[in-house]
Amino acid sequence: TAPGYAPSLRSRLPLVAFLLETIFILLFVFFVKIEQPEQIDREYDSKLFISSYAEFQDIHVMIFMGFGFLATFLLRYGFSGSGFNVLLAAMAIQWAVLMNGFLLPQRHHKREIHISMKSMIEAELCAASALVAMGAVHGKTNPVQYKFIFKISHILISSIMLLHVFGALFGVMVSWVLYREGIEPVHEKEKTDRKTGLFAMFGTLFLWMFWPSFNSAMVRDHKWERGLKLTVIYGTYLSLAVSVVMAMSVSMLTSAKGKMNMVHLQSSTLSGGVAIGVAMTAVHTPWIAMTIGFCASLLSALGFCYMKNHMLFAFECHDTCSVLNVHAVPGILGWFALLFLRLASDESTIAVQFAVYHICVLLITACMSLVMGTATGPTTLIHIWRPQQDRKCFDDQAFWEVKGFVHLHHFKYVTTP
Amino acid sequence: TAPGYAPSLRSRLPLVAFLLETIFILLFVFFVKIEQPEQIDREYDSKLFISSYAEFQDIHVMIFMGFGFLATFLLRYGFSGSGFNVLLAAMAIQWAVLMNGFLLPQRHHKREIHISMKSMIEAELCAASALVAMGAVHGKTNPVQYKFIFKISHILISSIMLLHVFGALFGVMVSWVLYREGIEPVHEKEKTDRKTGLFAMFGTLFLWMFWPSFNSAMVRDHKWERGLKLTVIYGTYLSLAVSVVMAMSVSMLTSAKGKMNMVHLQSSTLSGGVAIGVAMTAVHTPWIAMTIGFCASLLSALGFCYMKNHMLFAFECHDTCSVLNVHAVPGILGWFALLFLRLASDESTIAVQFAVYHICVLLITACMSLVMGTATGPTTLIHIWRPQQDRKCFDDQAFWEVKGFVHLHHFKYVTTP
Amino acid sequence: TAPGYAPSLRSRLPLVAFLLETIFILLFVFFVKIEQPEQIDREYDSKLFISSYAEFQDIHVMIFMGFGFLATFLLRYGFSGSGFNVLLAAMAIQWAVLMNGFLLPQRHHKREIHISMKSMIEAELCAASALVAMGAVHGKTNPVQYKFIFKISHILISSIMLLHVFGALFGVMVSWVLYREGIEPVHEKEKTDRKTGLFAMFGTLFLWMFWPSFNSAMVRDHKWERGLKLTVIYGTYLSLAVSVVMAMSVSMLTSAKGKMNMVHLQSSTLSGGVAIGVAMTAVHTPWIAMTIGFCASLLSALGFCYMKNHMLFAFECHDTCSVLNVHAVPGILGWFALLFLRLASDESTIAVQFAVYHICVLLITACMSLVMGTATGPTTLIHIWRPQQDRKCFDDQAFWEVKGFVHLHHFKYVTTP
Repeated sequence: TAPGYAPSLRSRLPLVAFLLETIFILLFVFFVKIEQPEQIDREYDSKLFISSYAEFQDIHVMIFMGFGFLATFLLRYGFSGSGFNVLLAAMAIQWAVLMNGFLLPQRHHKREIHISMKSMIEAELCAASALVAMGAVHGKTNPVQYKFIFKISHILISSIMLLHVFGALFGVMVSWVLYREGIEPVHEKEKTDRKTGLFAMFGTLFLWMFWPSFNSAMVRDHKWERGLKLTVIYGTYLSLAVSVVMAMSVSMLTSAKGKMNMVHLQSSTLSGGVAIGVAMTAVHTPWIAMTIGFCASLLSALGFCYMKNHMLFAFECHDTCSVLNVHAVPGILGWFALLFLRLASDESTIAVQFAVYHICVLLITACMSLVMGTATGPTTLIHIWRPQQDRKCFDDQAFWEVKGFVHLHHFKYVTTP
Repeated sequence: TAPGYAPSLRSRLPLVAFLLETIFILLFVFFVKIEQPEQIDREYDSKLFISSYAEFQDIHVMIFMGFGFLATFLLRYGFSGSGFNVLLAAMAIQWAVLMNGFLLPQRHHKREIHISMKSMIEAELCAASALVAMGAVHGKTNPVQYKFIFKISHILISSIMLLHVFGALFGVMVSWVLYREGIEPVHEKEKTDRKTGLFAMFGTLFLWMFWPSFNSAMVRDHKWERGLKLTVIYGTYLSLAVSVVMAMSVSMLTSAKGKMNMVHLQSSTLSGGVAIGVAMTAVHTPWIAMTIGFCASLLSALGFCYMKNHMLFAFECHDTCSVLNVHAVPGILGWFALLFLRLASDESTIAVQFAVYHICVLLITACMSLVMGTATGPTTLIHIWRPQQDRKCFDDQAFWEVKGFVHLHHFKYVTTP
Repeated sequence: TAPGYAPSLRSRLPLVAFLLETIFILLFVFFVKIEQPEQIDREYDSKLFISSYAEFQDIHVMIFMGFGFLATFLLRYGFSGSGFNVLLAAMAIQWAVLMNGFLLPQRHHKREIHISMKSMIEAELCAASALVAMGAVHGKTNPVQYKFIFKISHILISSIMLLHVFGALFGVMVSWVLYREGIEPVHEKEKTDRKTGLFAMFGTLFLWMFWPSFNSAMVRDHKWERGLKLTVIYGTYLSLAVSVVMAMSVSMLTSAKGKMNMVHLQSSTLSGGVAIGVAMTAVHTPWIAMTIGFCASLLSALGFCYMKNHMLFAFECHDTCSVLNVHAVPGILGWFALLFLRLASDESTIAVQFAVYHICVLLITACMSLVMGTATGPTTLIHIWRPQQDRKCFDDQAFWEVKGFVHLHHFKYVTTP
């Protein structure tokens, strides 16, 4: 290709997409059925359906609208931010329905996978984890590489902690391996402006507003009567309210000129929801939720200001959306809060068992994500995927017709005399 | 008027709006009542209300936010896109409540029309059909003409197929009649840029996310217990997920430079929802839904690339939002799928009856829309409506103060010494 | 500070925020608990929860997304519009939970405040009232001043009328006191453009779409069975539909060039919801709702065109978002409609009692808001809060890094050799 153009994905992306979709449809033919309503108590189902469809839609909006528009904060990468988000989440959901069905024994009956609201919510949470991982390599990989990372990063999400910590650490490791040697540490195109800031604010707000539903969807239904779902909703809500105040304050405090930074705000604002999501099963009073939100947002905002650049310059690890500070650090903080609250409240024997179990889960998650991340990196580097040039990082022009006529495709009709 | 200015609608639009609103209110005085809750079983009503209000709101968001912002994709026509959409949909709903009440016997009791969640959902679906028709003449007609076309294009929407196919064909015919002879085939103002692409993405996503509610709202409530509503939701969801992947792939494949086009993506992404909406009553397994989404999106994206321009240059029919490819073609595809699935599953006699009936419905719909479209065109052309000049097509400046001071009206206070 | 820079809030905002959050958390430790689900009938609770959580979320979206993006209409004040909105609403909610708990006897049991969906909805309505007041001083005060005004303007919202009329009159009085002598009446930065118009449209639509939920949330649950909630939803919906048509018509009619103004449209469109919200308990037929929407929108749009500037030039009261015309005037109109409808329908003795009571409420509200507004003004003026300079009104640059690199904080890493 001529030096002026990014390598075209015309021969890669459509082929991969056609192939994957054909495979998905074939697998769906043989294995996937819609859950038969005859199997369920109808009265119960009708009530549960209303609430679980509402829950599903809140999460649906968060994944497609929230993550999608949060990713538009880069000045020249808005189309890719929202477009690739839809593409990847749509594929991840189909993939997650299949994977969850094959790997979780309770999901398949007589070698059949049954689709239900529950399995669709689980699929969206898997997509969320993968989208967190994507945040770290945002703007530096092409959609074919994205898809590849996606397939690998799929994991059975059995807890919110796994979702955030695994997703974030995995993404950071991939980003570390993919570090481009020759590139300027601060890329000239990694910028924001007034309008993209508002688009990203818009995605942030959708995530922020529906986070209580996101956390409460992970609470199992049979616990409903003990009021845990309500407690989680109130706790997440208050934690996020404190979080947004602290994020703005710290952003102003750490700035030399005393000016807030929209990108900091958009990230740290959400950290309260991450932390409380991990700790939620042990949080029973509002003030604990608020304190967790307070600390998570403080840590996250400070991390954004100091650790992000330290990672970049000391470790050559460029983390575009700062997922380390938004998901990993608050996730681990929430995990410590959970441990501490459990140790304080339970009897000592159970508490110790719990502690040992949870410490193991965290360590295994961290190791797996680091190893898988490091292993995934090089395979995405191979030239067959046609990574974009350094100049074309954070730039839509590598993949999109960014401006022009609506009748673009056959403009030759007009221009030829 | 001087050549520099678009003809002002100041003496037209307010007059028409005042008149119509007065007539509406008068008709509401004599005929429309709110459904009395005493008439309904309360326990049932309370449960049904929760679910039907949620359904109504999803559709409400699609009509006003989804269609409204999808129509902002033109660089200089954003205010008109979202503003006229609200204006027309708000009028269409009042009109539809009256029309549905007068024309459907089951809606009026003792010469009274009763407003209920159901009648409001139906009114929004009628507005949707009219907004589809508007897509074809988007940017080339003024709001008074819009209103006129709206009144005509109102139809009793008894099926999703009618909604999409009638709306699209009607719109295309009107656009064909309204073709401006002297205009350049590719208008210099028919352009997009980075920011309008994101605004339109935003509308697209709202349509995309809530489409399962849109389709399932057409499923009657007494069929609820047979699980059809759930099947429709899952099917629409999967069909749309496949659709978005295929739309991007085809958009990249058909581009010479291997670059995706946001406008193509935004349109073809939704075709899966249209097709499955028409076929939904016969689709019982996920893979059939996915296959329908696959084919609809393929056809729609190819149609966008090749047929849209062919229509323009061969038939002089300019279809701004390409409603032919987004609504008519997937609608007819879904109709064929429905026919085929019914023929395959039912007993032969019923199947043949069904086939004959449905073929008649399609033919009648097509003929009616073509005839009505052709007839509506010329009446909107008459000079009394003050159509904008060719230069002012796709341009907000004909109707809006596009930029300026908030205190604009009495700026003379300031500028006069 | 040098003349070129706005006074930095670095030493003010973080300090105030830290302090307030610490106090809030301490108060929550001692007084606030989550409502125990054991106290409630479970079957009822589960059903009520679904509907009240949905109601809460609609209002949540209106407060954070609707008000937030409506406030982005100024060209150079988008970050502050949406950012400060989130900051203030998040603090207001914590404050309102405490205040409502301390001041309303039925909210605290044995010196404890119990958080429930109902108390959270009430807290959001208090935030709404404060945000209405903020509209009048939008762009002319810094966030520390905002916070201060917020604390004062908090009031126990026991009716929609109080919310709108108190909020608006309070805000206007504060704005009148804060009038900057030396400033040009039409500030050079008080402008809109194509893109900010769309962002604001977006916020407007969220408010517009969910307003039926906003009004119906104020209807007490035990009245449910009498169908009042449904009547309010239909009424608000129809009133808003008429309102949007009239707002556009009047905006075009009052413009010399026959062009609509997006800012007028965005404001007046909502007036129908305000007026019907106040009158709703007495409105039982659709046409009355539509007539109220018709009149409210007419008055509001005319007020926007003529009264807003009159207020500015005659009384030196600059009302940025024109809350007087959007909230106060339609609120009082709705109040008269309520009075008239009650007088017409009730028996004479009750009606007179009602009239006397309501006239007193209006007068007390008006007096309180005027007095409190006038008293609040000067205290916000004191130099300790560091008000921005005249030049920096309506300008994000006083508070935000509006454009630049994502790695902004430690850009020195790179620029130092």
